[in-house]
Amino acid sequence: MSAKDSIVLKDFGSFFTGGGNFTLTDKSLYEASFVKGGPVRSVDPNGDFETGQMYVQYYKLAEPTCRYPVLLWHGGGVTGACWGSTPDGRAGWDKLFLQNGYDIYVSDAVERGRAGWSRYPDIYETEPVFRSKQEAWINFRIGEQYSSVASERVPLVATQFPYEYFDMFMKQSVPRWTSNNAAIMAAYEEYIQRVGECILVVHSQAGEFAGYIAQKYPQYIKALVMLEASAVSSVYNSSADVPTLYIWGDNIRAGSLWEKYRANVYEFFRRQQADGKQVKWLDLPAHGICGNSHFLMLDKNSEAILALTVQWLDKVIR
Amino acid sequence: MSAKDSIVLKDFGSFFTGGGNFTLTDKSLYEASFVKGGPVRSVDPNGDFETGQMYVQYYKLAEPTCRYPVLLWHGGGVTGACWGSTPDGRAGWDKLFLQNGYDIYVSDAVERGRAGWSRYPDIYETEPVFRSKQEAWINFRIGEQYSSVASERVPLVATQFPYEYFDMFMKQSVPRWTSNNAAIMAAYEEYIQRVGECILVVHSQAGEFAGYIAQKYPQYIKALVMLEASAVSSVYNSSADVPTLYIWGDNIRAGSLWEKYRANVYEFFRRQQADGKQVKWLDLPAHGICGNSHFLMLDKNSEAILALTVQWLDKVIR
Repeated sequence: MSAKDSIVLKDFGSFFTGGGNFTLTDKSLYEASFVKGGPVRSVDPNGDFETGQMYVQYYKLAEPTCRYPVLLWHGGGVTGACWGSTPDGRAGWDKLFLQNGYDIYVSDAVERGRAGWSRYPDIYETEPVFRSKQEAWINFRIGEQYSSVASERVPLVATQFPYEYFDMFMKQSVPRWTSNNAAIMAAYEEYIQRVGECILVVHSQAGEFAGYIAQKYPQYIKALVMLEASAVSSVYNSSADVPTLYIWGDNIRAGSLWEKYRANVYEFFRRQQADGKQVKWLDLPAHGICGNSHFLMLDKNSEAILALTVQWLDKVIR
Repeated sequence: MSAKDSIVLKDFGSFFTGGGNFTLTDKSLYEASFVKGGPVRSVDPNGDFETGQMYVQYYKLAEPTCRYPVLLWHGGGVTGACWGSTPDGRAGWDKLFLQNGYDIYVSDAVERGRAGWSRYPDIYETEPVFRSKQEAWINFRIGEQYSSVASERVPLVATQFPYEYFDMFMKQSVPRWTSNNAAIMAAYEEYIQRVGECILVVHSQAGEFAGYIAQKYPQYIKALVMLEASAVSSVYNSSADVPTLYIWGDNIRAGSLWEKYRANVYEFFRRQQADGKQVKWLDLPAHGICGNSHFLMLDKNSEAILALTVQWLDKVIR
């Protein structure tokens, strides 16, 4: 690696934000040993617990070239790890943004990764959902049919997803709940108020959270990049003017879930556009960039998509 | 922050290691909506899942002064976040090791943090254990009696734990299982074989894993630092000679769980010592360093304890 690729950090660290106390009562005791060969202890499941927090790592450059940091928000069923090295070992968007002169913040939303999760149905209202490899293979538009045998998996023609490392990719999958959106949103709100002016780069499920934040706190959000947002804000603030870039990959079939999501997001985009907002719709295949999966930032051309994103940011951040 | 404190990275990234496929069959379908306002989908809990992996972030300096990286291994019920910024916002051991010239690797063990976790009791054999604030307050030797009201919590006299930020500390708590030790160990073995020669700095529960690894792969482990190890290896390899530093905090009461753990570890240490191994037992209060909790790396004097650790490493790594 050449010297120009080295990253000079002024600071780095981490924090938790959001959440609060939840007290459990009236549950029965049970016994467990916590250490091999260690004594058995009686466990009281009652008590006070922190719940609803999220986890954030930040990396601040000695000489950033952009005055606002990029906050990277993951989608459903994954963690901040999705912004790290790709399953086939290429640089993640975290490192690429740093190399492009942006400070970065990488978070694990409520219930995911280092944010931890809480007892259900006592604290969380429902049980978690686990994504199978089959579901991921098909829903993320890697292939049309899944096989348990890796060598028998047929990817979509000319897919950009590093499908040879699909099992490695699935190691970053984590359970998700469908009942925690209010807690997730509350934590993101606290996070944004703590960080202040910033750029949001978000994926899939985080589109809904970032969309809402951008409508509610337009003074903080200097730009918003939506990578295949599965939803946007359910409210519309006509006085908010947050430059927004919507990016969509390839192979979104008629009648599919992604087509429905994209149509909903497009409606929002059109409303913004009609109101004269600074918004851009980037349909990659329409620009000759073909084969992208739902995980644009992990695809084989992730660096090229990052470059398009940075190009657009350079234009709108003044 | 002065220029000398800046950190020049040659590279940073992340990977998953360990684990493999687990196939679930014969479970019933159920319905769920994954996105607010989105369509309801039928969920099939059966299928293939990755399980047993761990997550690793690495930071490589442009000019490390030690030729071996430090691998930071967390204890039970927490994640790699415990090596990051302290609950009261001071620098974590991750940053301090980098500033002392060591490359670092920070991991989330199987079942914790970004490593994800698996369905129970279908894949994991038991249900998870959640640590209450009361249990943490007492077991980690912060105070003798817990109160739900923060202002009424009485810490131990002259505690080094940043108890004013105890609720913030508890946000890093995550559920744990008591039945996953074999999977955790297997992942650590794969991890060590991937990284090669290194220094291990481990806390609490990780003492058992690191102790075993040091006995089995002494060729890779150039030094081992055990921060309040709750256990060590159950096997003893008389030909292994891994320089080991055992550090213990204050307020370990007669008859307590920690006294039992420490006595077991001491027995192992004495055997190493009798065999002429390069081992050191550092009982902090015996050296006039008082008030340390179980979380030495988060205590108010964490930087001083790091300095003692680095001093010892400087002596044994040649």
